[in-house]
Amino acid sequence: MTILLSVTGFQPTRWLHAFQEAAPRRSILLQPNSVMDPSIEYAVVWKQPEGILSGLPNLKAIFSIGAGVDHILRDTRLPDVPIARIVADDLSSRMSEYVVWRVLDHFRRGNAYRMQQAAGLWHERMQPAAREVTVGIMGLGELGRDAAAKLHALGFRLVGWSRTEKHVVDVEAFHGAAGLDAFLGRTDILVVLLPITPDTRGILDSSLFSRLKHRTPIGGPVLINAGRGGLQVETAILKALDEDVLMEVSLDVFETEPLPASSPLWKHPRVFVTPHAAANSDPDALVPLILGQIDAFERGEPLRHLVDRRRGY
Amino acid sequence: MTILLSVTGFQPTRWLHAFQEAAPRRSILLQPNSVMDPSIEYAVVWKQPEGILSGLPNLKAIFSIGAGVDHILRDTRLPDVPIARIVADDLSSRMSEYVVWRVLDHFRRGNAYRMQQAAGLWHERMQPAAREVTVGIMGLGELGRDAAAKLHALGFRLVGWSRTEKHVVDVEAFHGAAGLDAFLGRTDILVVLLPITPDTRGILDSSLFSRLKHRTPIGGPVLINAGRGGLQVETAILKALDEDVLMEVSLDVFETEPLPASSPLWKHPRVFVTPHAAANSDPDALVPLILGQIDAFERGEPLRHLVDRRRGY
Repeated sequence: MTILLSVTGFQPTRWLHAFQEAAPRRSILLQPNSVMDPSIEYAVVWKQPEGILSGLPNLKAIFSIGAGVDHILRDTRLPDVPIARIVADDLSSRMSEYVVWRVLDHFRRGNAYRMQQAAGLWHERMQPAAREVTVGIMGLGELGRDAAAKLHALGFRLVGWSRTEKHVVDVEAFHGAAGLDAFLGRTDILVVLLPITPDTRGILDSSLFSRLKHRTPIGGPVLINAGRGGLQVETAILKALDEDVLMEVSLDVFETEPLPASSPLWKHPRVFVTPHAAANSDPDALVPLILGQIDAFERGEPLRHLVDRRRGY
Repeated sequence: MTILLSVTGFQPTRWLHAFQEAAPRRSILLQPNSVMDPSIEYAVVWKQPEGILSGLPNLKAIFSIGAGVDHILRDTRLPDVPIARIVADDLSSRMSEYVVWRVLDHFRRGNAYRMQQAAGLWHERMQPAAREVTVGIMGLGELGRDAAAKLHALGFRLVGWSRTEKHVVDVEAFHGAAGLDAFLGRTDILVVLLPITPDTRGILDSSLFSRLKHRTPIGGPVLINAGRGGLQVETAILKALDEDVLMEVSLDVFETEPLPASSPLWKHPRVFVTPHAAANSDPDALVPLILGQIDAFERGEPLRHLVDRRRGY
């Protein structure tokens, strides 16, 4: 019956109150009573301390409160129990908001108009129609598909790329190493929603940027990364910006978070920085989904959205 | 057969070429051959010179290349022929892009994050869900309804206001002077897409701003005006910003355009200025629609999207 809530970085007390309110009969702990606490059956985690789950003899499942699970899998002493991702309309909607916001801000030349405003310059820029612009989405999971649907509704053309073959309505989909060049060659605005795995670490490098379309209807290629900071090589992003291989960039995630004060990304006029805030996890929306999984599991139903540890997501 | 193309401000030659290409059998003039040129049957206009249409004996109809028609109606010597607005998916889509872009930029706190970035500050802000925020749209014509549908798809709640009663799916609609207070009292982000008429001129004033919700999930009320500059009282906007009656403002239109260099709107840190660029008129998309109207009219069919001169739109 007992749930361990091991949440680093998010506000643990908000999550504690949400669980206590939604599941008054369960015991919710922020710390195990002991290294081998036998009462704990479920762990709900974000960046749990290394090894904290390893001695719990009755642990049955681990739940992530974020879309990614890299923060769980980096624990070298992770016990061999099922891990479930969170799949929630609330989380997908927030991520799609961020993606649509950033795509529109680049597409509608927000940066250029803000600079014109600072200079007191009244000058209308050529504005292509959305149907003339292709957004390329890397990562066609729940988040990528939701973002694609919302961008499609605004009239953009969509291409997508994923590790394995996927079919997504209204998206021309490419997959695997063999499909990457064709995908990049069609992309005007690149949106990255990949999980971080040994295969994807550092994938956003100079080689990838050089394969993007060079001329685009809005002037040059744009990168938007809301996946994980480990996907990107920040020195390569800065080089690509300075060599006009990339026109503008929006980054919500970074190699090191918080982004160090010394990073040139903070001050670059064509980089937009947010503090890993693209899709925050709302306890009120997510706690009922996690409790629903636990209740179903206890009725003997299978857990949903299970992680494949070998694959890494 | 002859069409007069009287386009001030837009690029006349782009329109001329689009008409010549699409209607090679018609004669297209940028100026009448004389004040009483008998050849001209149709006028396609944007801010036509005062009186230029008044002497044309065979003029049958006037077509606007923008969504509004105030630029036509201000001509005091306008002949008594039908005037047709342009209603085009292309134009509606571009306006909705602007509206969704500005709503998301305010809702997702773009201004605050840009200031944080300039200060090198890593700080995640509380982010309400879209379903907790109500966008109020003034003006429920083609543009307002399209914007409402696209905002609804992103999860926002919608209220709307129009002069006369209208029913719009997924929008709680209010109308007339009697409905204005209730509409404003529910609105977190106010989007203005009204036509300019004697009734609406200066409607965005201190009294209206004071009736908006004072506390909103994103911190304070937001104004987005993409209708006409004459709707707004700019001194009242600046006062409302400085007294925190308005939190942030996006303006695409102004009392005087181009916005004078002396206007404090240029430099205000909570105002976003674009140069009447929310929805530019694309000749390639709009010329076929105007020619389609003319062809249908010549076959004896009625003109569509006719303007009521008394009403003003």
